[in-house]
Amino acid sequence: MKLISGGVCAAKGFTANGVHCGIRKNRTKRDLALIYSETPATAAAVYTTNLVKGAPLAVTKAHIADGKAQAILCNSGNANTCNADGVEIAEKMSLLAAETLGLKPEDIVIASTGVIGQPLPIEPIAAGMKPLAEGLNPDGSLTAAEGIMTTDTIVKEVAVEFEIGGKVCRIGGIAKGSGMIHPNMATMLVFITSDVAISPEMLQKALSSDIADTFNMVSVDGDTSTNDMVVVLANGRAGNQEITAEGPEFETFMKALNTVTVHLCRMIAGDGEGATKLLECHVTGACDTQNAKIVAKSVICSSLLKAAMFGADANWGRVLCAIGYSGANVDVNRVDVAFRSAKGTIPVCKDGAGIEFSEEIAKEILLEKEIEILVGCGEGPGTATAWGCDLTYDYVKINGDYRT
Amino acid sequence: MKLISGGVCAAKGFTANGVHCGIRKNRTKRDLALIYSETPATAAAVYTTNLVKGAPLAVTKAHIADGKAQAILCNSGNANTCNADGVEIAEKMSLLAAETLGLKPEDIVIASTGVIGQPLPIEPIAAGMKPLAEGLNPDGSLTAAEGIMTTDTIVKEVAVEFEIGGKVCRIGGIAKGSGMIHPNMATMLVFITSDVAISPEMLQKALSSDIADTFNMVSVDGDTSTNDMVVVLANGRAGNQEITAEGPEFETFMKALNTVTVHLCRMIAGDGEGATKLLECHVTGACDTQNAKIVAKSVICSSLLKAAMFGADANWGRVLCAIGYSGANVDVNRVDVAFRSAKGTIPVCKDGAGIEFSEEIAKEILLEKEIEILVGCGEGPGTATAWGCDLTYDYVKINGDYRT
Repeated sequence: MKLISGGVCAAKGFTANGVHCGIRKNRTKRDLALIYSETPATAAAVYTTNLVKGAPLAVTKAHIADGKAQAILCNSGNANTCNADGVEIAEKMSLLAAETLGLKPEDIVIASTGVIGQPLPIEPIAAGMKPLAEGLNPDGSLTAAEGIMTTDTIVKEVAVEFEIGGKVCRIGGIAKGSGMIHPNMATMLVFITSDVAISPEMLQKALSSDIADTFNMVSVDGDTSTNDMVVVLANGRAGNQEITAEGPEFETFMKALNTVTVHLCRMIAGDGEGATKLLECHVTGACDTQNAKIVAKSVICSSLLKAAMFGADANWGRVLCAIGYSGANVDVNRVDVAFRSAKGTIPVCKDGAGIEFSEEIAKEILLEKEIEILVGCGEGPGTATAWGCDLTYDYVKINGDYRT
Repeated sequence: MKLISGGVCAAKGFTANGVHCGIRKNRTKRDLALIYSETPATAAAVYTTNLVKGAPLAVTKAHIADGKAQAILCNSGNANTCNADGVEIAEKMSLLAAETLGLKPEDIVIASTGVIGQPLPIEPIAAGMKPLAEGLNPDGSLTAAEGIMTTDTIVKEVAVEFEIGGKVCRIGGIAKGSGMIHPNMATMLVFITSDVAISPEMLQKALSSDIADTFNMVSVDGDTSTNDMVVVLANGRAGNQEITAEGPEFETFMKALNTVTVHLCRMIAGDGEGATKLLECHVTGACDTQNAKIVAKSVICSSLLKAAMFGADANWGRVLCAIGYSGANVDVNRVDVAFRSAKGTIPVCKDGAGIEFSEEIAKEILLEKEIEILVGCGEGPGTATAWGCDLTYDYVKINGDYRT
């Protein structure tokens, strides 16, 4: 398996595009994205667990109930959530895309991201649909990725190439997500495409299984969005024999999917609102996986630790504190903690108590852009990784006045 | 019942004092506090649920197992937590206080607050004990309250006067707490004194019942401290007939206690690290109290809402979002939201959807120092209140480099 350039157009038979249609006031920001498969594709999705759900989620869920879809239409600048006419607007979006692409509305996945509770006007989308569709092209992943960004500062795309049954296969994806990131069953907007032939059941199984260890282990601010959605389209153009059951081919697909999702997780966490650092918490030695996950996520979510990491302060007491209140079954008197980055590794706590360390070396390690927090529980085989970011002045700035 | 001036010395027979002994480097900051009852007092306490517990908590728990105590010794600047010799040091503190005051070590409540994982030297405490005890006086509540402060910016004390069986009674308290505030079964350090005569069982019952609606409904940053503790001493000097069972006298005591604790909650939340505003979320119409509490606490804990409040931005979508992911049993399509302050009330959401409102008026209301977020669930009799604060640049600043 190897990483290749590109995103949602890396797999055979996919094109994409992104334009500015006028939902966002800033004319330099694309706000409408389209991803298209030349042939019908198998579709699977997971959605937010927030009781308040964006209207597009309900529409998408109905459309892919048959396990099939052929295009994804997504706008940024407005979440189309908590609006009385939300479902109606999302259905109109489907209709516009279907008419333009010569498909049925039920073949369209609809997604929206942006402000909650402001009516989404259909006019700019209607006006932008034709140029959007006409501009579909095999190099369009980047503009599509730009079209779904809100407070994101970097474009998020990734692709991998691998073989199944002697056939060259690809999976690629784009993502947006920077604030209101604390996915539960799904995350922000992630669109993944593949040319692998796989049944709807196995595709959904692969996705549902993967997100438990990937997107559900990311947190920027503890707020689970109303519009989180991860969608995978697989059009079978790689020509492999369709995957319809577990086995080596399914394992290969799972591994490739995981490579893509972990990359996107790291990109989302590292580009958290206002973030200057990617935090990665690796837990080992927990009594089981579930408890390892609880510990990893609690550490990554601690506002106090996040602020300390912003200040490159090796305040390991905050790691212990977050483990202690996590609710995990863990013997805090056996916990070891170390910080690691490209500059080296420094152990700071052993068996739940502090050990002497050089503050200068710790500072040097923590000044890096990617910090690993290594937690050893000394109890069993449970391991887990969670991704987050530091808490900075800019997070407050961005969210102190998001709507204006 | 009326509010009176003073804190832990308001009740008859209590004196207090606070000094700088040298645990904190800054000589202008008091770092050692003592509260003393001239006669033995009934004692009750609640502690953090964090698995990582400060050594002083274990020592205090053992000392008041008999329901009695006569003095509280507390240092700031060092939490005496995650240290190999933690319990030993806390016991030495008890011994020093006992010797100086002519009491038994088992009569002393010990508490510590500050940095985790750095050994607490006993020398400054030993040196400071004599001047601390000699300075005990009936006006010492303020200096004791200063002695327990860390990143607090205001001194927190309150007292009330009421009658039980024709006898004038008083309850007063001091508190510290600004960061790492998300109590669970207890909060930061809160010391409450009373001259009411009450049995240990009924005192513990009153305290345990009260905190569920007060300190456990406060959150500054979602981090549950390792050293949270609320202690009540009641010395019976008011001369009322001892309260040994439920009834009107117990109800009066509960009401007075609640007046004190709610005041302290508001002070702790409003003085949250870096806070510019006190946030108070009132939930009504939930199906029951438990669900009302879950909703209120989720709203108050949302980083996104906290940042919006800092920016005086009426971003009610974040309130809906926080309700949606709270896990409470609530019909989001029936939720109403309004913001209220001294400048007026503005409804912003009805039945889960936005309503038109004046952004100018909303801004004026949200620029106040005390903001109420009113959530109506339209379902049942459940009500709850939670207290928090806004998320500001200063929170990041304070916690980016706490240890140096």
